[in-house]
Amino acid sequence: MMTRTVYADHAATTPVSEAALEAMTAFMKEHHGNPSGLHSSAQAAKKALEDARERIASAIGARKNEIHFTSNGSEADNWAVKGAAEIMKDKGRHVITSSVEHPAIIASCEHLREQGYEISYLPVDDNGEASVESLKEEMREDTVLVSVMMANNEIGTIQPIEDMAQLCKDNEVLFHTDAVQTVGHLPVDVNELQVDMLTMAGHKFGGPKGAAALYVRQGIKLPPLIHGGGQERGRRGGTENVAAILGMVVALEESIRGMSEADKRLRAMRDRLIEGVLSIEGAHLTGHPERRLPGSASFAFDGIEGESAALMLDYRGIQASTGSACSTGSLEASHVLTATGIPETLAHGSVRFSLGDGNNEEDIDHILEHMPVVVERLRSLSPLCNCGKKED
Amino acid sequence: MMTRTVYADHAATTPVSEAALEAMTAFMKEHHGNPSGLHSSAQAAKKALEDARERIASAIGARKNEIHFTSNGSEADNWAVKGAAEIMKDKGRHVITSSVEHPAIIASCEHLREQGYEISYLPVDDNGEASVESLKEEMREDTVLVSVMMANNEIGTIQPIEDMAQLCKDNEVLFHTDAVQTVGHLPVDVNELQVDMLTMAGHKFGGPKGAAALYVRQGIKLPPLIHGGGQERGRRGGTENVAAILGMVVALEESIRGMSEADKRLRAMRDRLIEGVLSIEGAHLTGHPERRLPGSASFAFDGIEGESAALMLDYRGIQASTGSACSTGSLEASHVLTATGIPETLAHGSVRFSLGDGNNEEDIDHILEHMPVVVERLRSLSPLCNCGKKED
Repeated sequence: MMTRTVYADHAATTPVSEAALEAMTAFMKEHHGNPSGLHSSAQAAKKALEDARERIASAIGARKNEIHFTSNGSEADNWAVKGAAEIMKDKGRHVITSSVEHPAIIASCEHLREQGYEISYLPVDDNGEASVESLKEEMREDTVLVSVMMANNEIGTIQPIEDMAQLCKDNEVLFHTDAVQTVGHLPVDVNELQVDMLTMAGHKFGGPKGAAALYVRQGIKLPPLIHGGGQERGRRGGTENVAAILGMVVALEESIRGMSEADKRLRAMRDRLIEGVLSIEGAHLTGHPERRLPGSASFAFDGIEGESAALMLDYRGIQASTGSACSTGSLEASHVLTATGIPETLAHGSVRFSLGDGNNEEDIDHILEHMPVVVERLRSLSPLCNCGKKED
Repeated sequence: MMTRTVYADHAATTPVSEAALEAMTAFMKEHHGNPSGLHSSAQAAKKALEDARERIASAIGARKNEIHFTSNGSEADNWAVKGAAEIMKDKGRHVITSSVEHPAIIASCEHLREQGYEISYLPVDDNGEASVESLKEEMREDTVLVSVMMANNEIGTIQPIEDMAQLCKDNEVLFHTDAVQTVGHLPVDVNELQVDMLTMAGHKFGGPKGAAALYVRQGIKLPPLIHGGGQERGRRGGTENVAAILGMVVALEESIRGMSEADKRLRAMRDRLIEGVLSIEGAHLTGHPERRLPGSASFAFDGIEGESAALMLDYRGIQASTGSACSTGSLEASHVLTATGIPETLAHGSVRFSLGDGNNEEDIDHILEHMPVVVERLRSLSPLCNCGKKED
């Protein structure tokens, strides 16, 4: 059955690019100093680390000392939310986020709630977009932090971050954005965006797992999430993973160089995929029809389980994901999809394709050949279901 | 001048072993799934991750579900200390640690102090050893956690962990040990030790940076330090760095297979190094003369600055470290050395050699040839100093 393998789950994690892998392994073979040391091996590692920091900063329009390396996006998200709440606690304890954030943000906010903070979740419209107006409405005297993602991982919707950041700036409220899905895929400049903090993660743009970064605008003295030695200017304990950080930098620079071409290529494939899939009866696009990530094509299907669809697609060589993840045995519908107003039963039938560098038009052909078959097969397996069959 | 390079800073970080690097790169080339996904690439990553967990558990006598992967030792230390304090806060808010701990433990404890906890630091004797008697004295009704490292990174002293853990068990107090310097170097069995939590870090035994683990005894429900998705059974958000974790496992198994031979070899080299260095006038061994790590030879010299010594040794191809790190421009003496009762001026003259797999007897010859010259040169550069020159 498996004649072709189509990896269409780049929003979960990307393959490590050859150049990034080469940079990492070369570094690990030649260097092994701890960047906190004094001798020449240590100083070589330190130099590589600081050079990487400079390059990451330059890639997003930041200053070198505004880049703080972490191990993954979740750590950076936790640090930003908990750290900002901590430094602002005397001014107020109200935090605003959106209802479609990544679990790292939502769980950090809920942790703050247990500490006595109040959390407001911005609603989103049918397209998954939160509005500046709703942010304005939620803003209070004691609001100290707003965290809204730049683009959504499940449905690809891009949020109006610039306007939100501007509103926060006008109100002297800190603004953080989880830009894990956008850095390396869309132009990101922290000064144009006017954000105070921004999260990126290497393994979402061809870098390795194990390297991520939190941009923190100069002047914001974020307390450590991980206490320890003097690393990251005393703000984050733990020996820096220099090799992985180098891999991240190489991958980011590669992505930025190829961004405009990749954008065109991915959008064309994505739009053909969306058009093709929507010709299946009972198929619905989730997320914004235009303001969405170039590689993201996400759907909900009447009358099927997303998990079964993902497994059946996998059997046919297509690696996609579903927002309806089976956690601890019970099927829970994605909070992102239900926030867009989709009924829970439909939310259970979600399938996400996230395209990337490795994909080509034949991959789209392959998906478009198999997706209708999978949907039909699954509906026929479920005798009670007549969703999507208008004639029955 | 540099005829030979001797890396003698293994306690800071070890070179990545060939087998570990091979395992990592092979995995990154072939696999790129996110272990939280459903499809076959994701499930392959998940399988590799769970297999690694099983092997790490078996290496330290633990159960599979007691192993929690983190990105580095500092993260694991922070998690253990802050998490345990959190779950025990209704019983009491007194934490005991030693005065020679790693900064990740000390800074975590000081963070707890800011939250209203009381922290007691166990004193150490001249050899850097904390006693069970002093722990008994500090133990109170409201003591909830004790964290004492298994072996010290700067002076190599091994602490009486089994007896301390037994005392804690008898008093229903949680016991954590930072075993970053011992795992892979000395036998470690969590059940023999009777510890509740234990930290290990891959890059201290030939694994890559970016992979570490916290053992948490079954039944202890540690709350997350990094909130997020369902990773690590809901206890630690963030995509697992499977490749680095594989590298850590391979390196640990390699270290354990070669442990008895390495132990013999390192001890012999270490003892010859100690004997040779102590023949220099005004040289003192720091740490315990016998109960110390097999590769650790640490000294303090009258009348020299450790930092200058490390730099001059580096110029002669010898990569060692000093406890007297120049941080933010001002020289601060190591808290470990001053805790052993060494006068601050002498503590400034500390040099640590930490030997590992790559070292041989010629390396010891090289150090023993250059160390006396470096000491003499530095003393002659400092006209006011007459320490160590008994005849002057």
